[in-house]
Amino acid sequence: MAELTVILYMLTISLFTATVSASPCPANGLPLVRNISELPQDNYGRPGLSHITIAGSLMHGLKEVEIWLQTFAPGTRTPIHRHSCEEVFVVLKGSGTLYLASNSHAKSPGKPEEFRIFSNSTFFVPVNDAHQLWNTNEEEDLQVLVIISRPPIKIFMYDDWLVPHTAAKLKFPYLWDEQCYQSTLKDEL
Amino acid sequence: MAELTVILYMLTISLFTATVSASPCPANGLPLVRNISELPQDNYGRPGLSHITIAGSLMHGLKEVEIWLQTFAPGTRTPIHRHSCEEVFVVLKGSGTLYLASNSHAKSPGKPEEFRIFSNSTFFVPVNDAHQLWNTNEEEDLQVLVIISRPPIKIFMYDDWLVPHTAAKLKFPYLWDEQCYQSTLKDEL
Repeated sequence: MAELTVILYMLTISLFTATVSASPCPANGLPLVRNISELPQDNYGRPGLSHITIAGSLMHGLKEVEIWLQTFAPGTRTPIHRHSCEEVFVVLKGSGTLYLASNSHAKSPGKPEEFRIFSNSTFFVPVNDAHQLWNTNEEEDLQVLVIISRPPIKIFMYDDWLVPHTAAKLKFPYLWDEQCYQSTLKDEL
Repeated sequence: MAELTVILYMLTISLFTATVSASPCPANGLPLVRNISELPQDNYGRPGLSHITIAGSLMHGLKEVEIWLQTFAPGTRTPIHRHSCEEVFVVLKGSGTLYLASNSHAKSPGKPEEFRIFSNSTFFVPVNDAHQLWNTNEEEDLQVLVIISRPPIKIFMYDDWLVPHTAAKLKFPYLWDEQCYQSTLKDEL
């Protein structure tokens, strides 16, 4: 009986260790300096997107900023969306269009302004302004570094620019945060 | 007399316009999408450094994040310093060494750990940990994108790693914020 207890105990320990080492969200278990090309990369259900969380809240334990590296294949785009955080873009490759509705005081975003974005350009989206990034260049990928404040991000999405703000759909946790959000919840059980 | 008043009035207007258009800190007067290669670049008194504020608090009106593009000539380095904000680095070119003292509970930073940093790597400095970035590669520039929270930055500097935290020297506004900080003060007069 004592032997069985020891075996069960050791089995529990080894299962626990396996779970920890296989975690995709090792907030404290990563080396300080990380090779970006070795970080998890996925489209998270959005065809034509490549997303890498370079430094993240749920993934790496940051509290005030989060940085993503995103690549959009020709013709692909973000949803029309807004969020109550600052967001800065640095365009590393390619070109495209930013659609930005700055009439956040109105009932819906309304017709957006169009801005051409290009390699080595930067721009920021004011807090809560609805916007959409679109790789309108048919020849080339659009690659951007994205910096947000107040992570993890809470996104309100619009099917079109005339959807009232009150009918925008909240998506939280967002696609690339889902797995680590679940993992955080488990940690609290 | 009336003519003189008109002339003086027009002179005042034109002087005012000249001052506004020459301002290096046009927080609200910039185009939304900006070409990074056209942004102000300077060493701000630190030989071998090239600093560009890509998106800044005093310079562009951001409140929660700030982004710099910095290039260090071979052999150049930051001061040993700490700050009470998060800081993330993305290494774009070159390689070097990060010195990081994580004993922030002790009386002084103490002997730092050394980390090799390299092109396409990322790392972050925990809030208030004393650190120093050094281009220890004699052949090549080190270029990094730096993201901080809680701008504008307040830096506490140490002459060496054994200086007590209480004797670190506060530098605020920091070198690249000085001009816009003065401009902000003038705006409030």
